[in-house]
Amino acid sequence: MIDLRSDTVTRPSDEMREAAADAAVGDDVHGDDPTVAELEARAAEIVGAEAALFVPSGTMGNQIAARVHTERGQEAITDRESHVVRYERAGFAQHSALQIRTIDAERGLPTPEQVEAAYLEGGLHRPETGLLSLENTHNARGGLALDPDAFAETVAAAHDLGVPVHLDGARVFNAAVANDVDVTAYTEPVDSVMFCLSKGLGAPIGSMLAGSEAFIEAAIGIRKLLGGGMRQAGMVAAPGLLALENRDHLQTDHENATTLAAGLDEIEGLAVTPPETNIVLADTAGLDVTASTFLEAIEDEGVQASEFGPYTARFVTHWDVTAADIEAAIEAVQTRF
Amino acid sequence: MIDLRSDTVTRPSDEMREAAADAAVGDDVHGDDPTVAELEARAAEIVGAEAALFVPSGTMGNQIAARVHTERGQEAITDRESHVVRYERAGFAQHSALQIRTIDAERGLPTPEQVEAAYLEGGLHRPETGLLSLENTHNARGGLALDPDAFAETVAAAHDLGVPVHLDGARVFNAAVANDVDVTAYTEPVDSVMFCLSKGLGAPIGSMLAGSEAFIEAAIGIRKLLGGGMRQAGMVAAPGLLALENRDHLQTDHENATTLAAGLDEIEGLAVTPPETNIVLADTAGLDVTASTFLEAIEDEGVQASEFGPYTARFVTHWDVTAADIEAAIEAVQTRF
Amino acid sequence: MIDLRSDTVTRPSDEMREAAADAAVGDDVHGDDPTVAELEARAAEIVGAEAALFVPSGTMGNQIAARVHTERGQEAITDRESHVVRYERAGFAQHSALQIRTIDAERGLPTPEQVEAAYLEGGLHRPETGLLSLENTHNARGGLALDPDAFAETVAAAHDLGVPVHLDGARVFNAAVANDVDVTAYTEPVDSVMFCLSKGLGAPIGSMLAGSEAFIEAAIGIRKLLGGGMRQAGMVAAPGLLALENRDHLQTDHENATTLAAGLDEIEGLAVTPPETNIVLADTAGLDVTASTFLEAIEDEGVQASEFGPYTARFVTHWDVTAADIEAAIEAVQTRF
Amino acid sequence: MIDLRSDTVTRPSDEMREAAADAAVGDDVHGDDPTVAELEARAAEIVGAEAALFVPSGTMGNQIAARVHTERGQEAITDRESHVVRYERAGFAQHSALQIRTIDAERGLPTPEQVEAAYLEGGLHRPETGLLSLENTHNARGGLALDPDAFAETVAAAHDLGVPVHLDGARVFNAAVANDVDVTAYTEPVDSVMFCLSKGLGAPIGSMLAGSEAFIEAAIGIRKLLGGGMRQAGMVAAPGLLALENRDHLQTDHENATTLAAGLDEIEGLAVTPPETNIVLADTAGLDVTASTFLEAIEDEGVQASEFGPYTARFVTHWDVTAADIEAAIEAVQTRF
Ligand SMILES: [Ca+2]
Ligand SMILES: [Ca+2]
Ligand SMILES: [Ca+2]
Ligand SMILES: [Ca+2]
Ligand SMILES: [Ca+2]
Ligand SMILES: [Ca+2]
Repeated sequence: MIDLRSDTVTRPSDEMREAAADAAVGDDVHGDDPTVAELEARAAEIVGAEAALFVPSGTMGNQIAARVHTERGQEAITDRESHVVRYERAGFAQHSALQIRTIDAERGLPTPEQVEAAYLEGGLHRPETGLLSLENTHNARGGLALDPDAFAETVAAAHDLGVPVHLDGARVFNAAVANDVDVTAYTEPVDSVMFCLSKGLGAPIGSMLAGSEAFIEAAIGIRKLLGGGMRQAGMVAAPGLLALENRDHLQTDHENATTLAAGLDEIEGLAVTPPETNIVLADTAGLDVTASTFLEAIEDEGVQASEFGPYTARFVTHWDVTAADIEAAIEAVQTRF
Repeated sequence: MIDLRSDTVTRPSDEMREAAADAAVGDDVHGDDPTVAELEARAAEIVGAEAALFVPSGTMGNQIAARVHTERGQEAITDRESHVVRYERAGFAQHSALQIRTIDAERGLPTPEQVEAAYLEGGLHRPETGLLSLENTHNARGGLALDPDAFAETVAAAHDLGVPVHLDGARVFNAAVANDVDVTAYTEPVDSVMFCLSKGLGAPIGSMLAGSEAFIEAAIGIRKLLGGGMRQAGMVAAPGLLALENRDHLQTDHENATTLAAGLDEIEGLAVTPPETNIVLADTAGLDVTASTFLEAIEDEGVQASEFGPYTARFVTHWDVTAADIEAAIEAVQTRF
Repeated sequence: MIDLRSDTVTRPSDEMREAAADAAVGDDVHGDDPTVAELEARAAEIVGAEAALFVPSGTMGNQIAARVHTERGQEAITDRESHVVRYERAGFAQHSALQIRTIDAERGLPTPEQVEAAYLEGGLHRPETGLLSLENTHNARGGLALDPDAFAETVAAAHDLGVPVHLDGARVFNAAVANDVDVTAYTEPVDSVMFCLSKGLGAPIGSMLAGSEAFIEAAIGIRKLLGGGMRQAGMVAAPGLLALENRDHLQTDHENATTLAAGLDEIEGLAVTPPETNIVLADTAGLDVTASTFLEAIEDEGVQASEFGPYTARFVTHWDVTAADIEAAIEAVQTRF
Repeated sequence: MIDLRSDTVTRPSDEMREAAADAAVGDDVHGDDPTVAELEARAAEIVGAEAALFVPSGTMGNQIAARVHTERGQEAITDRESHVVRYERAGFAQHSALQIRTIDAERGLPTPEQVEAAYLEGGLHRPETGLLSLENTHNARGGLALDPDAFAETVAAAHDLGVPVHLDGARVFNAAVANDVDVTAYTEPVDSVMFCLSKGLGAPIGSMLAGSEAFIEAAIGIRKLLGGGMRQAGMVAAPGLLALENRDHLQTDHENATTLAAGLDEIEGLAVTPPETNIVLADTAGLDVTASTFLEAIEDEGVQASEFGPYTARFVTHWDVTAADIEAAIEAVQTRF
């Protein structure tokens, strides 16, 4: 089976497994785990932040950030298709009592004008804007890698209004690789960034949340509230440290995605846009089948992808999928359609 | 001063004052106030509901309804310009832990297709849709009176998906009068309706929330939670009972609004659409002044209206404003611009 | 029927009804109601606070105070039998995400030592103490009027720890009258006080929340969130202004309560402690009947009281009950037991 | 340094490290991790539950359980010194909008009578009881191992009232070993149990939540809300599987604790009760030093323990501490005091 459901399915490498077995550990809830400390320091360094925090999942990282940046009853501005709106169980409302103000943002990035138009000063009746939450790459819009200049302008627009900015950077290194910039082009302008070790970077578990020292200090408290403190977490931080150095490898995933998209697009009736990173969205409407039917059919041929809309299938390339797998996957899908 | 800021500014009539003074009262928290009981029964009758509840404000009525209909972590579908989004301090998130899914709905009424597209079944990651909240007349879009058939179709679309529908009918009688239908055209299809006694109907205080008996029983509990239980509430219910019979008078407010809009629109540079009910929105951009400057200027001339956007002023006609006042107001504004 | 269920059942006097009918009013949500403004100013003056706010109920006043004083996730210290714990639907948790730390306080007043022992500094795992909520008179413990000096010492203990203090003073004037002190003995030391117009003072509707100007400004926002803003609220503020001057009358209620308690205690098997204010608790265990059976029986004789525990009945004297009514009530109960 | 701060500080054994390195893994958020599945099945089997769920921390397990069992605005009954009250950041209020009703329970276990007295049916004003949360062994009261019969009676009392019971069994195997019963004596009567792999059992990370299939299905949703879903979690589940078989070893920890307590108690002025499990509380008041001073002093001698109250130090024995370490620790403390 060629598993293209998500880059979260990657299995840890042998080096990662060894690193886990050999990790120096301590009780991280007491702040005693040297490997976690090293991971947090290295993560902060890479994204150009004062400090970072290891969390069990990207969702927890995003939710902590929203809670730390805001007061209850404020509004958070986000693209309407952002992960925090679609896939986090209304967490902004549940954990932080935030009202979401969704924007239909081209490529998932609100323009400075959209931010300004969405901004509310607050008052007796109106909530005030407390957060801008961005996402890069933008998952639901097809792994789009945001332009660093446009990104910085949007962030600046929020800052000019006194609004902090959080970046859901679950796949921010894919964006950096795609646009051939250092990741700090995205992470330095924002007030906090979450990125995942367990996606394209290949770690088994965990995400990083980075920001100022004061931000991370508050984040530790909210992580505890959410139950995200772990004990000898060095055992998973160790593979995470290796994953951090896998950033350049993402280029391979992107090439595989490009090959895959081109191959799939040759199928009559399947509409596939050239991908920007490692996510390929295929529109099955021209095949006269729903995404769900399509996915069942290709699974019979040994290829797994995921449903992303009534007529949209998502394929994600990753570390565990080779160029040969991609060719095999294309052939398998072509066999059927 | 001619006060056109809102129809909430109406002062109680002499009959209302007398009714308050003479009201039979009891402790309504104990269920002992006969005047409140009469008001609730009469309100239920008018809107064709099993039961009704007296609440101190429209905001409380809307918030109670959302809480009773939903579970925390669900989504509520609303027009992006609805009162519950704009003017209730993120109450859906704060009181009910709901994520709002806003729709850019023409005339403020999501179409059945928009409801279907916005609907979510829920799942491990996704919130499920728990409420459709409508508003009629639609305040922020200029007092629009929704078409009863279109309204019923949208409600039916939600019901087909198993989604309950609340109507923020703060000014629902204005809509009924404007479209020359009985109010039940709007209130019978929905699962709950809130309407205000203290707006065009002229009562000093209070709103009504109506729905099934089970809904109202739960609503009483949430009213208590919010601190909305009042003691000898008959003193304000008595004027409310008179207000309930003021529904036909709204026709006069609408005529005054039409006259006002026409008069204001004659002013070079002021763009005013003919109103559907008692709300008149005037666009000041063509005058090269902000709404705020415009409002200050006309207040100097003895006319008050309210700011509704950077270049939008809102005028609302009501019981305390006569046709002569309207002529005077037009003249006063024309004097200045 | 002699209604001794609560002092909330009082009906407004003719003067109050006239005051309502004649009240100068405006839209209080816009800050335009002169009678509300007068009531708020007079209330602030009486309790020695910078400012005050009219709210529909005591519960709303208490809940607003807790929300304004605290951050979510803090602890509030209260007596375990306080109204905010027993009768406000877990509002501290629901509105303010507070954990309640209950103290079994003699006479309902935690001692300074108890406050110090309950105080938490907070930390990674522990909530920090954010509020001390006191109640005077203490309803569930039998209308106890707290000693002003002991009260002030407890408040001082909290202040020394940096903890703000709210007083649920629903019946604080009863306490002042009972101890023959000015009410400011209780209200000046605290950071906020709520007191009810609609209990012993005899108003039909409403309570006052008082505190610093900054506190009241924030309180207005939370009142809006809870849906407690009312329009021409002057109609109920006017009787409230008269009620404010009924403070001395409470002495009569206390005398009636003393008479009632003595009369009831003569009944073999009924244990009644001499009351401190207007609340009389009667223990029915010695009669071998539950409170519920006892209450049904005396209601047949024309006397209403309320259930306060499995074997505890509560009688409350108030403005609408005369000394003659009290004698009649005693006789009626004696007839039966 | 002999680290007796907590049994959470244990480092994984070589077997655990190897197991992590060799674990079969998959994406557990997709339900594809065979090692997690095995761990969950084995954990359910051991505690006699239908199903179990792997969570990153005990706090998360407790918080999920409270959320799944209750409705917002209910009350949870707990001992006043329970972990959920002391050390989980007011999570019951923050995540589940629960009011905590604390009981001063002897040995931390409310009696059936206390449960019945604390039970509330609910009503217009009163919250209803929605949960009884027990803890065994009871940490803050000194690692007390509850009597199985008394435990079952308390659970039955709650069930008779229709109240579900959650067991915070972070150290429930210590209780079973101490009372020489199968753990099901504690876990079968309750509706859900959380126990920690990462305490005395020696795993690096994680806790288990067990209950009915319906309970666990709902728990998965709340785990996602809290951000507790992890990807290739098999790497930490594998050591967890080994930890599950370490239950009998806890006997050694208990013996060490008994030795430690006896040795410390010989110190003039230090009051130490014989422990029931692996937790030793030492009262420093008789030494005329605070716990904090005491702890600093013994740390200089190479022994770490933790502060548990102004004059209470807690020592916890665990897998990484041998009988020789215990002798050394006693000597070190005796050197100083
Ligand atoms: Ca992975
Ligand atoms: Ca009015
Ligand atoms: Ca014009
Ligand atoms: Ca009254
Ligand atoms: Ca007696
Ligand atoms: Ca461990």
